[in-house]
Formats: sequence, C-alpha cells, structure tokens
Amino acid sequence: MKRVAFADVSDGTSERSLMVVMKPDESRDLSTGACVEISGLLKPSQGAKQDLELEAQKIKTLGAASADYPLQKKYHTPEFLRSIPQFRWKSTRNSSVLRYRSYAHEQLSKYFSENLFTHVQSPVITSSDCEGAGEVFQVRAQDSPDFFGKPAYLTVSSQLHLEVYAAALSRVWNMTPAFRAEESDTNRHLSEFWMVEAELAFTKSLHDVTSVAEAMIRGILPRGLIATDIIASIRDPERQEMVQKRWEMIENSDHEWPRITYTEAVETLQREATHLRKLEWGDDLGSEHEKYLAGNVFRGPVFITDYPVDLKPFYMKRSVGTEKTAACFDLLVPEFGELIGGSLREDDYDVLMANMEKLGMDATDMGWYTDLRKYGSFPHGGYGMGFERWVCYACGVDNIRDAIGFPRWAGSCSC
Amino acid sequence: MKRVAFADVSDGTSERSLMVVMKPDESRDLSTGACVEISGLLKPSQGAKQDLELEAQKIKTLGAASADYPLQKKYHTPEFLRSIPQFRWKSTRNSSVLRYRSYAHEQLSKYFSENLFTHVQSPVITSSDCEGAGEVFQVRAQDSPDFFGKPAYLTVSSQLHLEVYAAALSRVWNMTPAFRAEESDTNRHLSEFWMVEAELAFTKSLHDVTSVAEAMIRGILPRGLIATDIIASIRDPERQEMVQKRWEMIENSDHEWPRITYTEAVETLQREATHLRKLEWGDDLGSEHEKYLAGNVFRGPVFITDYPVDLKPFYMKRSVGTEKTAACFDLLVPEFGELIGGSLREDDYDVLMANMEKLGMDATDMGWYTDLRKYGSFPHGGYGMGFERWVCYACGVDNIRDAIGFPRWAGSCSC
Repeated sequence: MKRVAFADVSDGTSERSLMVVMKPDESRDLSTGACVEISGLLKPSQGAKQDLELEAQKIKTLGAASADYPLQKKYHTPEFLRSIPQFRWKSTRNSSVLRYRSYAHEQLSKYFSENLFTHVQSPVITSSDCEGAGEVFQVRAQDSPDFFGKPAYLTVSSQLHLEVYAAALSRVWNMTPAFRAEESDTNRHLSEFWMVEAELAFTKSLHDVTSVAEAMIRGILPRGLIATDIIASIRDPERQEMVQKRWEMIENSDHEWPRITYTEAVETLQREATHLRKLEWGDDLGSEHEKYLAGNVFRGPVFITDYPVDLKPFYMKRSVGTEKTAACFDLLVPEFGELIGGSLREDDYDVLMANMEKLGMDATDMGWYTDLRKYGSFPHGGYGMGFERWVCYACGVDNIRDAIGFPRWAGSCSC
Repeated sequence: MKRVAFADVSDGTSERSLMVVMKPDESRDLSTGACVEISGLLKPSQGAKQDLELEAQKIKTLGAASADYPLQKKYHTPEFLRSIPQFRWKSTRNSSVLRYRSYAHEQLSKYFSENLFTHVQSPVITSSDCEGAGEVFQVRAQDSPDFFGKPAYLTVSSQLHLEVYAAALSRVWNMTPAFRAEESDTNRHLSEFWMVEAELAFTKSLHDVTSVAEAMIRGILPRGLIATDIIASIRDPERQEMVQKRWEMIENSDHEWPRITYTEAVETLQREATHLRKLEWGDDLGSEHEKYLAGNVFRGPVFITDYPVDLKPFYMKRSVGTEKTAACFDLLVPEFGELIGGSLREDDYDVLMANMEKLGMDATDMGWYTDLRKYGSFPHGGYGMGFERWVCYACGVDNIRDAIGFPRWAGSCSC
C-alpha cells in the first residue's frame, strides 16, 4: 500500500506466519521466497487475522529470491510441488505433514517406552529374501560385486529380525525403512517407506497384540497444537471436516474396537454388500470390502481376525482349534481399508518347518530364524504398520508421495 | 542341591535375573536357554545377591533347549557370539548395549524436541553420490535393472537432504541408516550404521552448532537405571571403571567444552607431542593426535575448529576472514578421538559453485542442492555423529560390530 507494506514471514515451525509491517521502500527486496532478518517491535495487531504483528525497525535480506523462484503465493498442485523437491516442503500444507511426522515419531517413542518396549533398529541390508515376493532391490558394492560373499537385498520387512530381538528383550519395536521394487504407479505405493513394527514375547493371545496396536494408534492421534496445524494447513473446508471426523471417530470410539473373524466378515459381506464383488470363503478381501466393513458396517476401526492360512505367510500361527485359519489380524479404518497387519508367530519348530516345505521354501539359509523355535521357543506375536499410510490417513493426504520427504518410486529418484 | 534347586530366570528387560527356588525334581527340564512360565510366591531372599526370590509353585516349560544350545552359563567371546546372530543378544553384556541404544534413542527424541528441532527422515536410496568416495553400494531392482531410470545408491550421509529440510523447517534432526562399502576389516568400520544428524537454519556461528552437539551428548549420557545396567553387565572391573570415568568426565565437565582451532592444535602437538608422528600445518590429524589432544592436553572433550579447507568437503563455509580454513569442527574425546564432525555450510551460490568446480565435481545433477543458495539462501550449519561409535564409547564396547543388532561388513551379511 502507499504508506505501509506487509510481509508474511515464516520459519517453518508452525503453519502460522508472522505479519511484518514496514515502510513501502523497505520492502523492495522482499520477494516471495527471500530469507530475511528483521528486528522490530512486537505489538498487538489491528488486523483480524492475527493477534500480534511485528513493526519492523531493521530489515536485512540474507538471501534474495529472484522472480523465477518456483513457489509463488498461490495454489500449487501436489504434482508441481513434487517436481521441486528442494522447495516443496516450504509450502504450508506440505510442511505441516512433516511436523506431524515428527510429532508422531515422538509419541511413538513415548508410548512404547511407557509400555516397556525396547526400541531396536533392524538391518536394511539383508541376505534373507524370505517373503519371496521377487520385487526386491539388490545391493552391490560398486567396486566389489561380491562384497558380502552372497546376494544381498534391501529389507522388505523387519519382522524376522524383530523376532530375534524379542527373543532377547521381550517387547520390542522399531521404525525402519523398508523397500519394494514395485512397478505399480499408484498413489498408494512407495519403493522406500518407513515401517512401524512391534513384537511381543510371551503372548499366546492375539488380543494382546491387537490391544497394543489400538493403544498405539490412539497415542499418535493428532492433538493440541499439531491438530490445529494440520487443519489450518488444509485449504478445502470439506477436507478439513473429513480429517477432523477421522480423528473424532478414533478419539470417541470405545476402548476395544470390535474384533470379528474373517469368516464373520465374509458372511456379513455376502449378506449385506451385494453390490460389491462377490466373495467366497477363502477369497482375500479387496479394498472395497475393507472400506465397506469399516465405513458402513462398523463406522469406525475394526479388527478382522483369523484369515484363511492360504492367504497368509508361512510364519503365522494357526488359530486355536483349527488348521484352516491363522491367528492373525488386519486393522481396517473407514475410507481407507487396511492400516495394520499382524499375527501370532508359529512357535512350534516342526509346524514351522512343515509350513515352509508346503510352500516350497528353502529352509537351509533360514536356520537363524527357525532356531528360535528349536532352542527355548517362546510364544509371541506382533504387527507392522506402513507409517506413510497412517500419515495419509491422519493428515488427509491423498497421495502417499506427499507423506514422505523424498519419495521414491519407479522412474523417480531425483536427488 | 539335594533338597532345593535354583534357576536364574530373565526376560531381557534388565541385566538382572530373578532367582527361582524349586524342588529338585521340578528342575529336570530346565536347561540353559529354556523358555519357562513359572508362578509362585515372591518373597524376601535369603541369598546375598538378591532382595527377592520366587518360590515356585507351578512350572511349565514353554520351549525346551537341548544340550547343543550354543549359549552356556560361562564366558563366550564376542567373536563366538557374533557367529550366532539369533542368540547373541540373549547374553547380558550384549543385551545391555541394546537397552542403552533404546534409552539413547528416547533421550535424543526428548532433547531435540525440547529444543524445537523437527524430526525428519532422510532417504536411504539416493541418486546423488556427492561425497564421491567411490565406496558406495548400488541399488538395482532385481527384475528391472533400470527401475529408477538412473543409477541409484545407498546414502553415505543425509546431510544434503537435511539442508533441504532445514530450509523448510528451521531446525531438524534425524537418525537414519548410512552405508559405506569399505573393505577395511577393522573393529571401527561397519557397512551399515546409523547416523544422528542435526541441521540448524539461521545460524552464522559455529558456536551455535557446537553448543547443540555438546548438549546432545550430555543428554544421552547413561544415567540412573541404564547406567547401573551397563556397569553390571561388564565382567571386568577395570573396564567398569574405565566406562564410569568416561561418564564422570562428561558429567562433571564445565559447560562449554574447550574450543581450539586446528592451527592451535597443530602448534600444541608440535610443541608437546614430539613422540607422535610429526605434523605440518595442512596435514590431517591422525587418531593418535586426536587421542593425545583430548586425553593428555585437555583430559576431556574438546572441539577442534577451523581445519584447512583442503581437508574438507566442498559444502563447508570458509572461516571468518580467511580463505585458508573452513568454519568446521570435530569433537574429540579421550581414548577414542573423533566422535562428531560438523560445519557451517557455504550459503553463497557463487562460492559454492566455485568450490565444486575446483574439485572437478559435476554440478549438473546437483541443482536441487545448489538451488537452496540461489533462492532465499539462509545461513546454516550442522553436524553428524555415527551412533554406533558413540555406543561403543558410552558402553565400553571394543568392537563396533557389537554395538549394532545385525552388523554388516565385507564378507558378512549372514541373515
């Protein structure tokens, strides 16, 4: 304006900026994106949007930003922002997601510590390709192809290593990167993502495991300042409401989210969800079925337990009293589907070996894992959650590529 | 004994075990390594070693351990323990190290949060091989060699990505795996290790950076229960004393550990340490020099600052008033040498580009990094610490392979 100029100054520690009031001729260098050092008088603001404003006395431009600075004071699409990895976290919406990740990390650390879990760190490089998905990354030393003396891969899951830790420390958790060389170009897949995993020794009950998963989710729910931050960073009021509803649904839900078996879930779907793809017992639930169960039937989080063994990996323990289903669970949430998967682990050596043989797995290199059942076997179970999936859910982010700092996917590893 | 049998039962949550008293015929299945469920009466103990003991009423063996169970109730060498990755963390000495890692992780989270750092997670897979060390791991999708459309590597340091985060969030920290394909078979090298790194925006003073590093170290020092745990897990009284002294040295040191320049350090060494390899100005300090400075000259932690630019990477800012040295530091500790390295980062675009050119570096793929100086450049600095190096120091572990759950080195990636 003629007699006064305004600048929004932000340091990225919250979604809020500080309104700076100065003389128009002082504002000449201050284009969007510039880095400034301003001292002045902090006073009650006359504007409606903020309580305080800074009346500038001394202004110094530490780093100017020329007119071709790619971020401007307008809406940028997530696609465009992804194309400038060096700047995209300066947008309020994006940085809010990073601040939530930090909050969630701290809450995880607090929750698990209070519940006597030991934090461990599982290896990224592994020689065991036990999930056998094929879609793994291989690791080779550039100057020494046979560096490890055997093929080495990036881990797809830390679970097996976590079981080793649990054998020694009882209750353990980790947050470790995991990798899938999946070609699928969707908004739900990353080649590099973070997994939150927990493993509990001395439990024979799936209920112990689901209880920890439930309490963990309650513990990392956005609350207080970070909740305000997330909501304020969302432009669209409808999305604000959607996110708020997700939190409230969890916050207000009774303790002990419902637990139903896969068999009950299939029966419910056969009876009620006649418009969806028809399921027979033994079929895997699709995303549509998961969303229907959580969103329409239970209108909140629900644990589906005891899936058919044929749908599940070799290490899962059988349900009590039957060979047909596994003592496992998925946690489903409305609009989203699966958030967490877990199980009791088979702790009988002979049964585990038989499982592996049935699946044609080579047990020779797996002695380190099967030995846990051979010597001092202990009943145990655990679960894993893709951290970025949860971040998408909690922050109302559509594309998982916007839930992680430097997303990697097929064709994309730009820096 | 004839009328009574004893068992040490442990769940791995501390270095202490519970003494169980039972009838001799009840102890038949209970060999070392067995997993048991025992209920009984917890009462004051008559033994000198413990306050409480459990008088067993019901004993159930959940998992027996046959006589060929590799861990026995005697001293095992670290080398032997490393050969059984599935069991080695069950040894008290080793599990104590894991419990300390967990404690340190929680304290890091607390310290950085209280000091307004945002926790971030940097990518493991990167296309930038900027340190140019050559000893990097390459990543390739097994079924799709050109998965990313360009060569991809495992990160050797998150610093450059951390600078991007700092540009958006001001103060950031992370704890992320880093990788070096080094062939050296020493007790100080790992191919996969964890780095604790911090980056501070809006600082023009190296002192800001060293202060954070100092406070962080004070924050993760073993105290209380975990200190007792570590000391009790060490067999050798001399080593117990050595570790305790290391802690006391830090605990009792005045705030503001000494800071001297590289130039002063070299002069001191030339004058006092005539028995060590002779140094000229411009030579890098060797481990012997570092240990002498911290152990003999300062008898405690010391920051050495302003090393010759030729010894340092392209991204370091020059010291104030000279082109010869960089505004950087190493933190040295007695018996050990370097623990932390850091610097201010060059925030002038032209100077940074000139640095890269001088070193023959190709700047074409580095636009994402150099752009931080082109648009809204901000003065900043930070540091990195190899977490396992610190764990070795704090726990008195000789070999870095015993400071991480599943160590990786040339020829070794067994599970």
